[in-house]
This record gives sequence, structure tokens and C-alpha cells, in this order.
Amino acid sequence: MSDVFDKCSNWKDFRIAKATGLYPYFRSIEASHGATEVEIEGRRVIMVGSNNYLGLSADPRVREAAIKAVEKFGTTCSGSRLLNGTLALHEELETKLAKFLNRESALVISTGFQTNLALSSILGRHDIVFTDRQNHASLVDGIRLGFATERKFRHNDVDHLEQLLAAAEPDAGKIIVTDGVFSMEGDLCNLPRIVELAKKYNARVMTDDAHSMGVLGEKGRGVPEYFGLEAETDLVMGTFSKSFASLGGVLAGPFEVINYIRHKARSVIFSASMTPASIASALKALEIIEAEPERRARLLDIAEKMHNGFRAMGFDTGVSVTPVVPVHIGEQVKCFRFWKALHEAGVFANPVIPPAVEAGHALIRTSFMATHTDAQLDRVLDTFEKIGRRMEVIPETRPTSYEKVQIARPGSGVRSNKASDKWAAASAGELAAKGFTLDQLSRMSSREMAGKLFDAVEHLTWRAANLQPADLRKLGGASLKLWEKRGELGGKILEKGAHFFMRNGQDSNGSQAERN
Amino acid sequence: MSDVFDKCSNWKDFRIAKATGLYPYFRSIEASHGATEVEIEGRRVIMVGSNNYLGLSADPRVREAAIKAVEKFGTTCSGSRLLNGTLALHEELETKLAKFLNRESALVISTGFQTNLALSSILGRHDIVFTDRQNHASLVDGIRLGFATERKFRHNDVDHLEQLLAAAEPDAGKIIVTDGVFSMEGDLCNLPRIVELAKKYNARVMTDDAHSMGVLGEKGRGVPEYFGLEAETDLVMGTFSKSFASLGGVLAGPFEVINYIRHKARSVIFSASMTPASIASALKALEIIEAEPERRARLLDIAEKMHNGFRAMGFDTGVSVTPVVPVHIGEQVKCFRFWKALHEAGVFANPVIPPAVEAGHALIRTSFMATHTDAQLDRVLDTFEKIGRRMEVIPETRPTSYEKVQIARPGSGVRSNKASDKWAAASAGELAAKGFTLDQLSRMSSREMAGKLFDAVEHLTWRAANLQPADLRKLGGASLKLWEKRGELGGKILEKGAHFFMRNGQDSNGSQAERN
Repeated sequence: MSDVFDKCSNWKDFRIAKATGLYPYFRSIEASHGATEVEIEGRRVIMVGSNNYLGLSADPRVREAAIKAVEKFGTTCSGSRLLNGTLALHEELETKLAKFLNRESALVISTGFQTNLALSSILGRHDIVFTDRQNHASLVDGIRLGFATERKFRHNDVDHLEQLLAAAEPDAGKIIVTDGVFSMEGDLCNLPRIVELAKKYNARVMTDDAHSMGVLGEKGRGVPEYFGLEAETDLVMGTFSKSFASLGGVLAGPFEVINYIRHKARSVIFSASMTPASIASALKALEIIEAEPERRARLLDIAEKMHNGFRAMGFDTGVSVTPVVPVHIGEQVKCFRFWKALHEAGVFANPVIPPAVEAGHALIRTSFMATHTDAQLDRVLDTFEKIGRRMEVIPETRPTSYEKVQIARPGSGVRSNKASDKWAAASAGELAAKGFTLDQLSRMSSREMAGKLFDAVEHLTWRAANLQPADLRKLGGASLKLWEKRGELGGKILEKGAHFFMRNGQDSNGSQAERN
Repeated sequence: MSDVFDKCSNWKDFRIAKATGLYPYFRSIEASHGATEVEIEGRRVIMVGSNNYLGLSADPRVREAAIKAVEKFGTTCSGSRLLNGTLALHEELETKLAKFLNRESALVISTGFQTNLALSSILGRHDIVFTDRQNHASLVDGIRLGFATERKFRHNDVDHLEQLLAAAEPDAGKIIVTDGVFSMEGDLCNLPRIVELAKKYNARVMTDDAHSMGVLGEKGRGVPEYFGLEAETDLVMGTFSKSFASLGGVLAGPFEVINYIRHKARSVIFSASMTPASIASALKALEIIEAEPERRARLLDIAEKMHNGFRAMGFDTGVSVTPVVPVHIGEQVKCFRFWKALHEAGVFANPVIPPAVEAGHALIRTSFMATHTDAQLDRVLDTFEKIGRRMEVIPETRPTSYEKVQIARPGSGVRSNKASDKWAAASAGELAAKGFTLDQLSRMSSREMAGKLFDAVEHLTWRAANLQPADLRKLGGASLKLWEKRGELGGKILEKGAHFFMRNGQDSNGSQAERN
């Protein structure tokens, strides 16, 4: 007899990640020093893993606005916008955002996640929604909660999009939905072509500008402004937890559409409204975004410095043209080890592993704030270089040349950078299927061999810990015994690995970071 | 060729509600006076339409905690719990909530809505979820986002639940999900029977205690504590926008299950975390909830006073045993008119209409705070009585006797009150199908006739405005002309109605409220 909870007790990833020391999640921040540095486990680290692009979460004017709102309206609205949760402040923010975004109407919603869920309210049974495969999870869920037919196109593949549009029922209502800036790899959607296709096939267009509002375009209105295609983009969405120093989201577009969503979206009418403090923070941030374009300029300068800084060392930052700067590592466990070395060296960045990226394409995602100092940025670069060399992600000496990045500055029209062939072209299989022969092993130095074997042990531990009953059934009855002992397996393999290293008198992991 | 946006431009409810003056939503609050009174359109009104049960949103200690958190941590965490959005404060709240709720583990999530969506992560393809038809929208959506088979049972009908359990695949994983207190009508789930059935059929149980945490049970732990069935309830959920003076939610249960949800739920890992101010407010509110049981006692005293106060006048407050006090009106347009009269008389309450309740069962939902004064409550009762008599919801003189309510006080075991036969038994059809014959009309006084005709005009206006093409197709080709002119229809009928009243020299609506 099975139990809904079985899947939870059978899940091993967490335990094994903790046991191997490669657990990169839910790190607890004890204090913040101007948002660019935070304290973790009593140590001060540089934060390059935040979406606080303009650094406004630490701005005294934003804090002051939040505090005043708490004093005037309390700590909560105790209800939904529809009923008792609408303050004049909510309406003020909506009016100002509509004006800022050049839209008839704007609707603010309690979280960015719920803002994308609200899309579901206009997706009827006779509609078709065309969606990029790498769109944010909240868009995926918003589309699942709607009743439209879903057609997914390959990431940023406008030819595939056109095939799907051409094959669709001509009379159906159609909408193309895409992230403006893709959050993990920092690349832009191909809005110019998407808009052309939308005209040709009579479809509406919506962009998720969570990572571009406040950041891209002359005025900071995001990807549609950047491409000069605001009139052609029917709906735009943004979140307040990135550039707006708050929590919440906005959906903007024609009055009739926004008004319909306002009254019909379940994530709006059945959820308590944004708190007074969050509304006031977003309002003040909007004022600063409009008044201080120099923040955007500084942020893009920083993005250029970091992309080129990493590339000069031999790292690959992929196709990104934005302050989201992915540093390509490749294999998942190696990525976790890279993350751990960064963590121990005082740099807070985030590992991104499959399924958020393709297998073999694991990366360290860095993202920057307009308020980072050059000294902080140089420390980050220096740390990456040391770890990258030690872990053989980059060569011992800097390459003689590298491809300089282009940044999506206002008016530049830049859409993409060149990634290395390995990054851009290699299939997931090619990158993931690595190993070595006994012959290769015999020619290794003991230090090299230790490293390789450590990798292999970690790999195996990880895989063994994640075996599923279905995987084992494929191996036939012989594996049943193994399966029964799966609980001890990870530990045993780890133990063997540990003995190996003790004999070799070294630990290829963290402690070396301090010696470097 | 159709357009995704067509449904928005075709939607008429909003325009007609605005035109008739019967638009009760998104009322903008300009200022708050200790949460029990607020300013709307420059007027001060009594708030009995909030979920701020303990009145803590205005508590100076809670405000102080929120302000300190803004000073120390800024206005946002700029990322998800998983990556850069976990503060030591989040962990402190989780530890304290787990202790408070007697659970191994607790997980705090950015909104109550997203807390229920997180349930989806444990609903696998081979599971079956049994859900009350009147569960909150966020549970409905959480279940839709999961992959389990859904079995809906009739509201609070445990016999129907047992039929569904008995008919289900015995080997499937099973979970029964129910609101603890149903938010619109204030009734309790039948947790004792649900727990018995869960044991018999090997199912897990989850309660949504949004409206009972902080309110019911000796210690305020909600419906499972109230029934003495905490050990038998596997997962409990609560929101911070009600008793906790904040925004967010909590899911608590066994460590392995909560830990799995923490790492797998999309509404957790892909959404920015609760703001420092919201975490600090909830922490302080929890401290007060534990330290000041007198707030709960006062709230339940108020609930008793209001239920019995309304009943003494002849109103029906249904089966509620909680501080959610529904006042039964019946027909939807009448309910809107009742709402409007309350609004004009300075009482903020909310109309609840189909589909949130059954057709013919529209009600005014009132809900109370521990901080309401007796003088405020008496003003509310007085206002309801005047309007109720004028609108013939209650008789001109008080009934000689009425059924006293029982309130769900700790240890009482009370689960339900007696509703009037009309409220409890009449089918939606019986209540909705009202009208009068020419013969009846001829015997009416002119005042009575005016009232009846006004009702009919409003009714007709509302219905005409909401006609759908499919409705009209049923009427055959003759109605096409009418359909083409539907835009003008509401206005014309209203105009006729207005002429009628002018001739009779009275306005049965708002202005009379001031004369009374």
C-alpha cells in the first residue's frame, strides 16, 4: 500500500548533498552590509548572487519610505485587493507604473510569481499560447492553470516558433509569451522577430521583464523599450524583487485587458495584497529609477567589466549581454565544488544545474548591482581565477586573446554574444559523458589521479544516491540486493574515497583554497 | 479571426456595475485608524470586512518589529529562499512556528496562496487527492498544478467523502485536503470524521488553517488543536495575512515531507522570499498570539455578541461558529444594494455572491477583530437593523425568540449552528426563481410596487448586461437584433426605471438611509 509521503522519505539528494558538503541552498544570511556584502556563518562575503540590480534594497530613501508606510498603514492589508486590501498607495503605484511603462493600465500583484499566474485568466479553451521552453517557472505554471492549448518552441528559436504558428488553427486566439531576459543565462529574447511573426499570424505578444525592468532601455522600461517595440508588445510583466527593492509584480497593457485580469485572476482576487511597506518601497524605487539613469549606466559598465574580466581569464560567459553573468563550469558535481570553493573564499554566487540548464552545462550564475565597488568586483574576479585554475576550468596562463562582449546598452541593438564552441555547440551527451581509461590512469601523476578519482567518487555517490526503483528494474533482478542496501551505498563509496585521500595526504577541496 | 483579448472587451459586468452604482470591489483605503476604522473617499468607516482577527496589524509592537527589520535588512531579500533570499529571520520564524504548531518542521512561503500551491509538489501521478468542493481557490489551483487524480466531495459531506474513498484504487497514495474554517461562511470542517475515514482508508490529512490559526483552540493552533486531533492531521497550513499581521504562509508537518516540499515546490524555489518586514511582523505576532490568550477570548466573545445580535433582529448567520459572521441576504442584486447601503452608512463589509456561494444564497460577510470596541459593534448592529428592515430582509419588529449560536470556544466541541430552514434547505433554484403575477401587482401599494419593480429592473439590467452569445443562440434568430443593440440595452432599461421612480417621487436606494 503506498503513501503520498513515500516520495519524500525516498528522496536522497538532500542527505547526500549534506553528507558530501556540497549543499549550496538555503544559505542563511545573518546581516547585510549595504546589500553588496552579507554575513553568513559569522563571515562577511561579497554578494554576487542577488537580483538587486540597482542596489536599491539598501537605499536609505527606500527604507525611509517603507518605514513611513508601516507607521501610517501598519504591517499588512489583511485581505485581497478585491475586498479590503486596496490602499490608495496601491492605486498610486499602478497609476505611476502605467505612466512609466507607457501603458493604459497597470495592475500590481502580491508576488512576481502570482503576476505570471494571473495570465491564466485570459487563456480560454479556444486560445493557443506559444511559449519559449526556457520561460520562467511561473509562466509555465500560469499557462498550466489556463485553459488554452500550449505550444512550446525551442529556446529562442524563432524558426521553430514560426513552424508552430503556421501549423496552428488560423481562427484561434493566439499569444506569444517570452521572458525578456532569460534569468539563468542572461540572454535576450528575439523580440524583433517575435513581433514580426505576431503580426504575420495575428498573435498577441507578452514579455516577462522581471530581469530587464529598471535595467535595460534608455528609461529602464525593459526589453520592449530596448528594442523600440513597446507599441508592438501587448502585455508586459515585471517584478519588484529585482530592481524595485520590494516584493510583488506588475502586469501592464490595454485598460480592458488589465481590468478583466484584475477581476478574474485567481492569484489576484484570492490572495492578500502587497503590504504597505512593499508598495511604498516599490514607489520610491520607481522614483529613483526615473531620476537616476546613472545607476543603469554604472550597472552596464559593471556587466561589461565582469564579462570581459572572466573572458580574459579563459572563462566562458555564454551568450549573455546583461548583468546576469553566467560562468560556465560544465559538469554538475564540479559546479558544486566550484560553488563551495567560492563560498569558502568569501564570494556568494549560485550554482545552476540541470534541469534549469541542459545536462553538462552547469554554471555559476553571477549577477551584479550598480552599487558594487570596483574593489569588490576585482576581488570576485581574482577569486574566480584562482579557483578556476585549480579546478582546471581555465588554463594556468591567460589566453592571448578573447572575444570581447557587447552589452545591451540603450540604442546598441545588441542581442547576443558569442559563446565558445564547447558551450554553444556541444550536445548535452558530449559534455556529460566523460571518463578515463586504465591506460590514461597509469600515466597520471598521483596528484592528478587523486583529483580524477575524487571526481569519480563524487559522481558515483551522487548517482547512486539518486537511483530510482525504475532505473534498477532495468538492470534486472541482480540489482535488487544493491537496491536494498542503497541507504549504505553512498557512505561506503565516500569512505573509500576518503581513505584514498588520506593515503595521498591531501584534500583537493576547500582547505586548499586558503593555501592559494 | 478571434483574438485572445476578445473576452476582455466583451466583458460587461464591470461597466454595468459601475453604471448602476453597485460596484463593491477594489475600494481604496486612504488612511487607517487602528485598523478598526478606515478612511474611504474622505469618510471614516467601521471595518468589519477584514481578516485581521486579532487586530495586530495596528499593534505598535508589531510595527516596531517591522521597522527594525527594514533598518537592519532593507526592504527586500531580492531572491528566492533557495538561493540568496534566506535570512536567519526566516529560519527563526520556521523554528518558532514548528514549535508552536507541535510539528517536526515548518516552511514559510511568500504568500498564503503560494503556500497552498506548494502542495502540488507532493501530488504524484499515482496519488489521489480528496478535496472539499468549497476549499479555497489556492488549494484548487495547487491541486490542478499537481499530477494526482482529483476527487471532489460535496461541501462538508463526509458520507460522500467515504463513497469516494471506498471507490478509489486501494493501493494509491491518498490525501484528504480541507479548509479548517471555510472562509466565506465561517463553518468548520468535520475533522473528527475525516480523521476516522483517513485511518480506515489509509489516507493522509491536510487542513488549511488560514482562518483558524491564532483564533481557535486553547493555544490558538487552529482547527486540529480545537478538535484535539493534531497528531492525526499530517500537514497544516496557515497564512500570515490574517491573525499574523503580515503577508505569507506556513506549511508544517514531518521533517522529510516539509524538506522535500522546500526543495521541490515551484512556488517556493522560483519566487522571491518574504520581506524582512513581513518576517519580523509574523514573528512578533506569533509572540503575542502565544502570550496574550485574552485576545482570542475577546474575539470569540465578539463573535457571540454579533451572531446573536444579528439573530435577535431576525437575520440568519447560517451555520458559522466563528468570528466569520455571514449575514444572509439571498438574491445577488439585493445583496449588492444592501452592501451599498452599508457602505453609505459607514460600515465596510463585503458582499459574497455566486459562484463563491450558491445561487440565491448571496450574503454580506462580516468578520471581526479582537480590538473592535463594543460601541463600534453596536453601531454595526444598529446599521444592519435599519437597512435590513428597509430592504425587507428582516421583519419590522424583532422576532419573539431566536436560536442562540454556539461559538467554537476551546473545549466546546461545537461544530455547527442551526441555520433557518430557508438558508439551510432551500435549493438554489427555489431561492433564485422569484417573481410576481399581474394579479399580485394589482393588489400592491404604490410604494410596494415601486420597490418590486425596481428590483425587477435591476435584475433585468444585470442579466441583459451579462447575456452571452450562447444564451442568445438558444432564443433563435429573432434575438439577433437585440444582441446587436445589447450595448444600449442596460442604459435604456435603467432609464425607464428611473422615470418610474421620479413619477413616484422616491428613491428606494441610498438617500433614504440618511433619513432613517
